[in-house]
Amino acid sequence: MTLLSPDALEAALRKIGAERYHHLHPFHRLLHGGGCTRGQVQAWALNRYCYQAVIPLKDAALIARCDDPAVRRAWRSRLVDHDGEEGADGRDTEGGIAQWLRLTDGLGLARDMVVSQRAALPASRFAALAYLDFVRSRSLLEAVASSLTELFAPAIIGERIAGMLSHYDFVAPDTLAYFQARPPRASRDSAFALAYVRAHATTPERQRQVQDALVFKCEVLWAMLDALYAAYVSPGHVPPGAFVPEDPR
Amino acid sequence: MTLLSPDALEAALRKIGAERYHHLHPFHRLLHGGGCTRGQVQAWALNRYCYQAVIPLKDAALIARCDDPAVRRAWRSRLVDHDGEEGADGRDTEGGIAQWLRLTDGLGLARDMVVSQRAALPASRFAALAYLDFVRSRSLLEAVASSLTELFAPAIIGERIAGMLSHYDFVAPDTLAYFQARPPRASRDSAFALAYVRAHATTPERQRQVQDALVFKCEVLWAMLDALYAAYVSPGHVPPGAFVPEDPR
Repeated sequence: MTLLSPDALEAALRKIGAERYHHLHPFHRLLHGGGCTRGQVQAWALNRYCYQAVIPLKDAALIARCDDPAVRRAWRSRLVDHDGEEGADGRDTEGGIAQWLRLTDGLGLARDMVVSQRAALPASRFAALAYLDFVRSRSLLEAVASSLTELFAPAIIGERIAGMLSHYDFVAPDTLAYFQARPPRASRDSAFALAYVRAHATTPERQRQVQDALVFKCEVLWAMLDALYAAYVSPGHVPPGAFVPEDPR
Repeated sequence: MTLLSPDALEAALRKIGAERYHHLHPFHRLLHGGGCTRGQVQAWALNRYCYQAVIPLKDAALIARCDDPAVRRAWRSRLVDHDGEEGADGRDTEGGIAQWLRLTDGLGLARDMVVSQRAALPASRFAALAYLDFVRSRSLLEAVASSLTELFAPAIIGERIAGMLSHYDFVAPDTLAYFQARPPRASRDSAFALAYVRAHATTPERQRQVQDALVFKCEVLWAMLDALYAAYVSPGHVPPGAFVPEDPR
């Protein structure tokens, strides 16, 4: 193993995203291109909630393992983004989880079913848990690196908003608040995480670890779409107990 | 919630197995009925290794949380079954993991690829990890109850041995040692776990927990076959980096 320059390491990480990020998954092509039924969009939002619910847990787990006050403080903004806060005017600002529930509400899913995760595909819960476990158990550097899928998020989100609004009359613009809010946050967060990784992955072994962490995270996102595709597109085998859309496929 | 008698609780648990155990999964019907290609059997053995590798970890995690020496001692036999021991004649007896590797060897899979789990479907690793996390984090009673899928294992294993030997000329009898050894062990272990659950699930809430634990464990096994089916049967989308069989499907 040879030591890469920070620029070469960044290029290697961007290559992983270009090859493995879930923008390449056939479910996303369906979703963004208007190929999904309402039931499939419901299933996507319901299952993706498992991932959304884990994000502040993994962010808090990362903060809980970090000795540097400056890093903890920077990372804390992610908790604010997902859990909201009281604004200067005394009113709550809506966090990402509340915004996601606005989407599932708008899609006609019972909130209790969404929040309990009881109708989600087990594979969705397992993938989200694997992400949480990774952040809890690996090195801080690997935990930071596993967030770097956000480097690739702004592009997919732009495509998603446009695609969903143009193709699905059952998706109202105000239910997409989560995606409206994400790109600047994802850019800020991924810039911080990338700078951290560039500065701290200073041995060939650590550079290998951060690349593996990003591969792992791509696997988490990909596995969630694989499970959705198999249950709700093809072959259409919904596991026992999981959500069954009302509309015919 | 009402309190069930031990017999009624056992009946409820057996009903969960009858409805949710993975003997009902279409992949098993293919596997046992001779409908799999060699590549699909390879993929099954390769991915199931992720689960096999986690079993002694979850059993040790359970022992590590148990205050009762008698339960710890009884549960220890599971470690022996999976990791082997030195026999009275000084020779090692083969544990379940070694036997599983005999199967993957016989199927022509490189041992390093199997043991590293690097070519396994991420969904297989995530499901196995979810099982380990469950045993580590839930109550001891729930951890014990999650093993109760073994109540249903002897029947499926008998079917598997017969089916694989009669249908697949690439499966040699001596590579099925794992399955030859399992039924008496599974019967012994599940009898112990069932007696424990009958004795300790003494409130409606605990009875709900043990049923939920068994449902969860059925979800783990089912999710592994869902992932296999989606990657290697239909729609046949192998995720980036995962095993690709050499034979055409």
